[in-house]
Amino acid sequence: MEKKRVAILGATGAVGQEFVQSLEDHPWFTVTQIAASERSAGKKYIDAIRDDSGIVGWEIGGEIPPYITDMMVKSIDQVDVSQLDLVFSAIESGAARDIETKFAADLPVISTSSAYRYEEDVPILIPGINDEQADLLDTQKKNRNWKGWVAPLPNCTTTGLAITLKPIYEKYGAKKVRMTSMQAISGGGRSPGVSAMNITDNIIPYIPKEEEKVRIETRKILGKLKDGKIIDADIKVSATCTRVPILDGHTESVAVETEDEIDPAKAKALFDESNRNSSVAGLPSAPDEYYAFHEDPTRPQPRLERPVGDGMTTTIGRVEKEDLFDNGLKYMLFSHNKKMGSGKGAVLLAEMLLKKGKI
Amino acid sequence: MEKKRVAILGATGAVGQEFVQSLEDHPWFTVTQIAASERSAGKKYIDAIRDDSGIVGWEIGGEIPPYITDMMVKSIDQVDVSQLDLVFSAIESGAARDIETKFAADLPVISTSSAYRYEEDVPILIPGINDEQADLLDTQKKNRNWKGWVAPLPNCTTTGLAITLKPIYEKYGAKKVRMTSMQAISGGGRSPGVSAMNITDNIIPYIPKEEEKVRIETRKILGKLKDGKIIDADIKVSATCTRVPILDGHTESVAVETEDEIDPAKAKALFDESNRNSSVAGLPSAPDEYYAFHEDPTRPQPRLERPVGDGMTTTIGRVEKEDLFDNGLKYMLFSHNKKMGSGKGAVLLAEMLLKKGKI
Amino acid sequence: MEKKRVAILGATGAVGQEFVQSLEDHPWFTVTQIAASERSAGKKYIDAIRDDSGIVGWEIGGEIPPYITDMMVKSIDQVDVSQLDLVFSAIESGAARDIETKFAADLPVISTSSAYRYEEDVPILIPGINDEQADLLDTQKKNRNWKGWVAPLPNCTTTGLAITLKPIYEKYGAKKVRMTSMQAISGGGRSPGVSAMNITDNIIPYIPKEEEKVRIETRKILGKLKDGKIIDADIKVSATCTRVPILDGHTESVAVETEDEIDPAKAKALFDESNRNSSVAGLPSAPDEYYAFHEDPTRPQPRLERPVGDGMTTTIGRVEKEDLFDNGLKYMLFSHNKKMGSGKGAVLLAEMLLKKGKI
Amino acid sequence: MEKKRVAILGATGAVGQEFVQSLEDHPWFTVTQIAASERSAGKKYIDAIRDDSGIVGWEIGGEIPPYITDMMVKSIDQVDVSQLDLVFSAIESGAARDIETKFAADLPVISTSSAYRYEEDVPILIPGINDEQADLLDTQKKNRNWKGWVAPLPNCTTTGLAITLKPIYEKYGAKKVRMTSMQAISGGGRSPGVSAMNITDNIIPYIPKEEEKVRIETRKILGKLKDGKIIDADIKVSATCTRVPILDGHTESVAVETEDEIDPAKAKALFDESNRNSSVAGLPSAPDEYYAFHEDPTRPQPRLERPVGDGMTTTIGRVEKEDLFDNGLKYMLFSHNKKMGSGKGAVLLAEMLLKKGKI
Repeated sequence: MEKKRVAILGATGAVGQEFVQSLEDHPWFTVTQIAASERSAGKKYIDAIRDDSGIVGWEIGGEIPPYITDMMVKSIDQVDVSQLDLVFSAIESGAARDIETKFAADLPVISTSSAYRYEEDVPILIPGINDEQADLLDTQKKNRNWKGWVAPLPNCTTTGLAITLKPIYEKYGAKKVRMTSMQAISGGGRSPGVSAMNITDNIIPYIPKEEEKVRIETRKILGKLKDGKIIDADIKVSATCTRVPILDGHTESVAVETEDEIDPAKAKALFDESNRNSSVAGLPSAPDEYYAFHEDPTRPQPRLERPVGDGMTTTIGRVEKEDLFDNGLKYMLFSHNKKMGSGKGAVLLAEMLLKKGKI
Repeated sequence: MEKKRVAILGATGAVGQEFVQSLEDHPWFTVTQIAASERSAGKKYIDAIRDDSGIVGWEIGGEIPPYITDMMVKSIDQVDVSQLDLVFSAIESGAARDIETKFAADLPVISTSSAYRYEEDVPILIPGINDEQADLLDTQKKNRNWKGWVAPLPNCTTTGLAITLKPIYEKYGAKKVRMTSMQAISGGGRSPGVSAMNITDNIIPYIPKEEEKVRIETRKILGKLKDGKIIDADIKVSATCTRVPILDGHTESVAVETEDEIDPAKAKALFDESNRNSSVAGLPSAPDEYYAFHEDPTRPQPRLERPVGDGMTTTIGRVEKEDLFDNGLKYMLFSHNKKMGSGKGAVLLAEMLLKKGKI
Repeated sequence: MEKKRVAILGATGAVGQEFVQSLEDHPWFTVTQIAASERSAGKKYIDAIRDDSGIVGWEIGGEIPPYITDMMVKSIDQVDVSQLDLVFSAIESGAARDIETKFAADLPVISTSSAYRYEEDVPILIPGINDEQADLLDTQKKNRNWKGWVAPLPNCTTTGLAITLKPIYEKYGAKKVRMTSMQAISGGGRSPGVSAMNITDNIIPYIPKEEEKVRIETRKILGKLKDGKIIDADIKVSATCTRVPILDGHTESVAVETEDEIDPAKAKALFDESNRNSSVAGLPSAPDEYYAFHEDPTRPQPRLERPVGDGMTTTIGRVEKEDLFDNGLKYMLFSHNKKMGSGKGAVLLAEMLLKKGKI
Repeated sequence: MEKKRVAILGATGAVGQEFVQSLEDHPWFTVTQIAASERSAGKKYIDAIRDDSGIVGWEIGGEIPPYITDMMVKSIDQVDVSQLDLVFSAIESGAARDIETKFAADLPVISTSSAYRYEEDVPILIPGINDEQADLLDTQKKNRNWKGWVAPLPNCTTTGLAITLKPIYEKYGAKKVRMTSMQAISGGGRSPGVSAMNITDNIIPYIPKEEEKVRIETRKILGKLKDGKIIDADIKVSATCTRVPILDGHTESVAVETEDEIDPAKAKALFDESNRNSSVAGLPSAPDEYYAFHEDPTRPQPRLERPVGDGMTTTIGRVEKEDLFDNGLKYMLFSHNKKMGSGKGAVLLAEMLLKKGKI
């Protein structure tokens, strides 16, 4: 198979850098164009990520992938869509709407922004969870008279919740879910991102709009595609989202009420089975285990879980019956907000959509 | 009034040091004896808290109260109960049972340990919350044929939850509560306490026995004293307790289902009223405001709340209707685990009991 | 004595808030006017420090002093100098030059900015260290044909170094000093200040221009005023300045070569004597002890030293002979960058200058 | 070549776990026996590292190497030296002396403990730095009438200093060095290790004995082997060692006085040349680059440097002329205390000694 030619929009920012890293030596995709703001256009990538004092802002750590170092950064307008098969958009939400609209006219666009998430003909896709909703992309294309489509990822806090709820919802019927998150600093972005004066030895108990996003997105992701639209899942979702002094990875404390009786042993069997049947198993960016289920009560711990599956595995622990409800479960989860919840998750989505023939 | 003569048992440990500080220049109590392990007995306090290399372990920060510096530390056996009116026990739980039993034969004992918390004739008292349960101390005294009694504080994680639930429970009828805590490092004690390798940039999702303590203690504290025993409150409590990299002060995310309709405005009025009617108002260790209620969604924050009311005020914020339930509220609270939840809380309890004539 | 009427310029920023706090209930000064940018002008202080979402940005913690809450914020242009005796400037360096120039034409200006520090007729004053250089303010006034003058504080990293070197320099003749700093996050300001992604679990080994400032300012502060100008001290200063994940307070590791023999015992005697003879002793903002000298090798520790003397005491510990040099000493110091090194230090400077009759 | 059979003594502790990890799939060594305290003896490794509550203490993160999981842990006495070619000792210093003596009678012992470091016939070896001192092992063997020898690594704080000084010392003649360290929490060990209450938002300015170790070891490592003994380098070393809230990796601020003129450009050339000529280049545990030299003034940063060369590369940055001295340099270095400074460094040492024919 010839590699698909992809562009990264917003390639110099934090999410853009994750795309750059996730696409290094990719077996199916090759980055042929990169674009960023006017300020960066016309520079080599290495120079575009330098700050005013000449310091290179490759903030993921480790080495910058050699393939990108000398690639020339274009302005958004200079991107040549005729030479592309796919676009990854790491554009920040304000500008994302217009730019993604423009590119979707010609090409598939996979995005980490929220610009299109809440449109009726746009699915919010998590590869391995609601792949069947991808068919809505065909409707979208037709509706809008585009040659491409826009497929957004969910908010990174929704990701872990929806991933862990999905098998429970399907098999035991989840009715209500109460979640408290302890979110990582990196979720607040860079430049400037979260201020150290605010978060050191502190908790910020509020992240604007986050709880509403989790509620709406979870219901849509767990919903069913029917007659060209998604019927939201009939589940009540209540979230309290907080920021804690953790670098990477979101931890969430979840209590879920189910229709049918569930207990830790059934949950373990369920996630084991889900691992075996994972629809993304074997894809280049998929982890060996989609779920890691721990009986050791000291897991999940952010520092221990981050490297598991290169950040693409979702960890579940502290699983117990939830006695508040007639039937239900409580558990804690860990989801890597900069990997499965961001750039590398988007690349896995592209792999799934390519395999499905959507790209 | 002549000052009551008090002893501090376990005066050299972390909780003992809080007692030392909370009792400095106290208008009602004067520390006349201090006791600790054999290792410390016979030394001046300042020498007893030195480590092997001669370094003074006054770990609260600030200056050691001058009144205690040269006071001689006794062994537990050397304490002269005939010269005392009251004992504060900061003994760690293993040894606490026997020692508190011995002292209660002669004297009132106020304790931070869990040794007696779950006995039928022992109330778990939070001053300002369930003062009326103090009458059970008379029963206890009679039952056991003691001249004194033991009055334990709750676990520090229960403290904030019970304090905030109490007015809601009384006025709106709380039926179910779901709580996720983010607890401070200082709750894990010292020597060695929580390891920096475990908690830096990390969350430990499990604190042994904590969730069970919160469940049992909350029901007892909110219960009613009737015919010489406490009828537990009819409320389901589910807790997930975690340790986060915060020095002092526990933050809790709470969702509570109520019998009657409640909303943020009603909650604000309720806590305002509770402040006005606080039974501990005016006591020497009581804060100006028992509750701090914030409409600013970025509160509570541990670093900002710690100094409020010198750690004796409980903070409530992020108050919203909880849509999971027909009637209910969600909110976040902050409670200072080393102040209201520990030594100074015990001193406030002593003040309340003295005022009530129990001491 | 009637209180002097003072204005705070830049009252809404981080340094401005320190001035607001340091001047609460001040016995000699009363804040009668406050000014900030156009964006804040015309608002009450409490409203001027709200952010776009209505959240109050009183970031020092604790309560906002009631005296300031409803005071109206003026624009810089609206300040009425005819009703003032003194101005405190917390203006950031870019704009400080012009604004301070304008006010100095009419009034004494005490500033935390670097705008005027390196002018020949401007002393860099640390109260208690180089008070005699204050006479240069008269020269400055005359030179510039002003009614007032500008008196800047040094950079907060210079503060602790100069304070501890001064007695050594005077008595034992310091020739060379090598310093490595571990500076607090709060030194990087707010909005946005240091990014949590950069400093959590990390050290930033570079603070632009800081080392040069320390070098130049230390030599000037230790210098002698002669014939209307300051002759820099003949001391070589080499500094390496780093940022570490500490909220408040700068720690510095110092090695100093002296002319004459010095050892820890002599150093202790020297700082004891300096405490007894402190020129600022008894001033309202001065600490009980100007220097805290520790023989306990585990001091200074930022968390323990911050509250000492309400941040106005400079701590010295780990004092040993420096064997690299024929004569010399090594030690560590702690200086509170947001107190003695900033707003409250500036207020102490004002007190000293008032006592000296310069205001 | 047949793989050498090695044992790990103290295999269950923090350093022992590093050995386990560093020897996974090693091309030259195969772990055939592991030993620990009586408490662990007779258990599978996976069970030996469980704590009382059954939780696995694999604290390096990531997965436990499968080769070790079910290997049976022996007591020290049960180790069969007749089936071994080499022993790695991760024994803590108290017991290390006797145990290493016992094993050295039969076998080469490579150790991370300080037990033998200061003996006249024992070199302190850093592979790539003072390989020629390995000849002293032959003398040691003969002196002591052993079949083996003991080869200890230096203290982890010495490691980075000696590694960076070596080329400067050889080419430019270092006379004096002043170093201030900012050391990682992990250097304080585990169980209990550094207390989070002590180090969070804090600096501990003192690490017992550390400064003396750095002084003595650096002079020995830079010394010359002559007539069967090491003549210490004629260099004065002064160190101030502090603990900072950083998980892994020691940062050091260094000023060195040299005989001959040196500047940043010469230093860069020197370290480039040292990289090209590295005596350990190509060994299985050696990094691609022994030294990483940065002109970007924001390096080294612990979080960015840790993964470089899998922790085996030493980073140098902030290189400037040191104006305090006639000739000299100042710089900052980063050295990974749990990799090059510990288990993996010991494995690299074994590789070097095997290549040299000492094993």
